[in-house]
Amino acid sequence: MRLFTFLKFGETRVGLERDSRRLDLYEAYRLVYGTREAPGFLLDMKKLIMLGKPVMDVLHELEREWPREAELSGQLEWSPPVPFPEKILCPAVNYKAHGQEAGTPPPPKPYFFTKFASSLVGHEMPVVKPKVTEKLDWEVELGIVIGKPGKYVEPERALDHVFGFTVFNDVSVRDWQFPEGWPKILNPYGQNWVWGKAMDRTTPVGPVIVTRDEIRDPNSLSMILKVNGNVEQNGNTRDLIFNVQELVSWASRGITLSPGDIISTGTPPGVGFAKGKYLKPGDVMEATIEGIGTLRNKVEQE
Amino acid sequence: MRLFTFLKFGETRVGLERDSRRLDLYEAYRLVYGTREAPGFLLDMKKLIMLGKPVMDVLHELEREWPREAELSGQLEWSPPVPFPEKILCPAVNYKAHGQEAGTPPPPKPYFFTKFASSLVGHEMPVVKPKVTEKLDWEVELGIVIGKPGKYVEPERALDHVFGFTVFNDVSVRDWQFPEGWPKILNPYGQNWVWGKAMDRTTPVGPVIVTRDEIRDPNSLSMILKVNGNVEQNGNTRDLIFNVQELVSWASRGITLSPGDIISTGTPPGVGFAKGKYLKPGDVMEATIEGIGTLRNKVEQE
Repeated sequence: MRLFTFLKFGETRVGLERDSRRLDLYEAYRLVYGTREAPGFLLDMKKLIMLGKPVMDVLHELEREWPREAELSGQLEWSPPVPFPEKILCPAVNYKAHGQEAGTPPPPKPYFFTKFASSLVGHEMPVVKPKVTEKLDWEVELGIVIGKPGKYVEPERALDHVFGFTVFNDVSVRDWQFPEGWPKILNPYGQNWVWGKAMDRTTPVGPVIVTRDEIRDPNSLSMILKVNGNVEQNGNTRDLIFNVQELVSWASRGITLSPGDIISTGTPPGVGFAKGKYLKPGDVMEATIEGIGTLRNKVEQE
Repeated sequence: MRLFTFLKFGETRVGLERDSRRLDLYEAYRLVYGTREAPGFLLDMKKLIMLGKPVMDVLHELEREWPREAELSGQLEWSPPVPFPEKILCPAVNYKAHGQEAGTPPPPKPYFFTKFASSLVGHEMPVVKPKVTEKLDWEVELGIVIGKPGKYVEPERALDHVFGFTVFNDVSVRDWQFPEGWPKILNPYGQNWVWGKAMDRTTPVGPVIVTRDEIRDPNSLSMILKVNGNVEQNGNTRDLIFNVQELVSWASRGITLSPGDIISTGTPPGVGFAKGKYLKPGDVMEATIEGIGTLRNKVEQE
C-alpha cells in the first residue's frame, strides 16, 4: 500500500495511491460508510501507524471500494508523509564510496545524528536555502518509517518494527556542518550536526510511504538523484555498510523507537561537496528510489 | 509567576505555585467562571505559552481569586513543565572550569546538541539508568523556555523571546558519549551526542517554569547539585561563556525557535566523570537554582 499526507482546508489528511490514481481516505470513508465524519487517524499518519492492523484492514476495504467521488485530481499540497515524527535519526557515512569521497573513514558502529520535524518539507514543496549558507547540498537516502514500538530490537526481528519505506533527501548545509575547515582540522566536538543538517525546511521526504509488504528486499533498492535533470548520485542499498535491520537495531539501544519515527540509511557517493558543486535557487532536485517513487523539490532562497 | 505541569486522570494539566501552595488551574477556571469545562490551554503548557498575553491575563486573575477548592495537596505526579518540546538544544562546554575538568577547549561559538522529548522526566519522577551503561552522570543547568517565536534573533532582543526559566539536569551517559576513549582519541564524527545525551527518561527538568519578569538577571543565578545530600556542583550563571541572550541568538540562526522549546545553558564544574564518580540505582539528585527551586530525582535501574 502506498500512503501519503496532503493538506486540505488547512488540515493534514491521509491519502492512498494506486496506479497513479490518488484517493482522499477521509472522504472515501464518509462515502463508503455513509458517515458524517471519518476517524481522526485519517487526518494523522502517526496515529494511523500507531493503531496497527484494524486500521490497515479499514484502508484495504477503502482501497477495494475506491469511491470515485473521493479521487483527487490536479495539484496537491503535499506534506511530509509523517508530518511531525517524534524522532528523526540519520546515520553518518554508511556507504564506503561516500566515505571515500568525503575523506572520512566509516564509523565502527552506526553514528546517528538527528533532524527536527521543522526541518522537513513534503514532495513538490520548496526546499528553503537558508540565507546564511552558500553550500547547500543533496543526499538521496532510503528512509525507514517505524511501525510497532521497540527497544533493544534484535536485527532478526527489526523488520517487524518497520511500517514502510520512503525517499529521504538529507539536504545538508556544508559550511555549517564542517566548522573551521573540518575535516582538515579535527575538533573535539565533531561536525556541527544540528546546523549542518536541521535548519528550517531544508529536508524533503516522501512523496509516499510504501508499506513493508510491498518491498521485497529493502537492502537491494537502486536510487538516483538528479539536479536539473543531470544524474548526480546513483547507488543501491545493497552497498549499505550497516543494512536496514542493523540500523533499526542500533537505533533502538536505550532509545524506544515509536510509530512514525524516521530512520534514514545514509547516502551513496555523488554529493555536491565532493565535486565543488552546490545548490542554487531555482535548482530542481529529483530523488528516485526503486519501488517507491520520485521526490521532487525546487530550491528557493530564504 | 511559577507554572508547572502535572498529571491528573491520565492527562497533563497546568498548575500554579505561590508561597509553596499549588493551584490546579483547570479546576480554578471552572470554579471562578462557573463553567463546566476549562480551555484546552490549561491542559497544555506549549499551547498556553503560544497564546501569549490574553492567556497570561487569565492566569493572573485566577491567581488573585485563588479558589481554595482548587488547591492541590499531597503528592503530585509531576510532568516536565513542557511535556513535549518541539526542540531541545543544549550547548557543549559553556563554563571555562567545566572545559578544564573535561580536558576540552571551549568552542569558538556555541556548539549545540539535541535531546528528544522522550528523554525528559519531571520532578520526583525516576531517572532511568539504562541497562547498557555504567557511567551515568549529572549536570545541573539553567534551562531557558522559549515564548515568542523567533529566527535570527539579535542578542539585544533575545529576552523578548524567553517565556521563563527552569532547572535542567543534563544527565549524560558517558560511556556512550565518548566513543573509543574520546577525548584521548579524536574521531571525525565527534562525541556520540545522541546516545550520550538522549536515552529514554534520563533527563530531569522542572519542577516549575518561573516567568521571565520574576528573574532579575538570568546571567547571575547560583546553582548547586547534590547527590545523596553531598554537594557535587556549585556554580553561577555569571560564569557562562556565552550568556543567555547570546545562546538564544545563536540557536535561532537558520532555525525558528518555537513556543515551549528548551535551550539549556551548559553545566558548571563538578561533574562525575571528572572525579571518577557515577550514579547508582537509589542515588538521589537534587539540582537547585536560585529563584527557581529544587529538582529532585531518584535513580532507578532499567
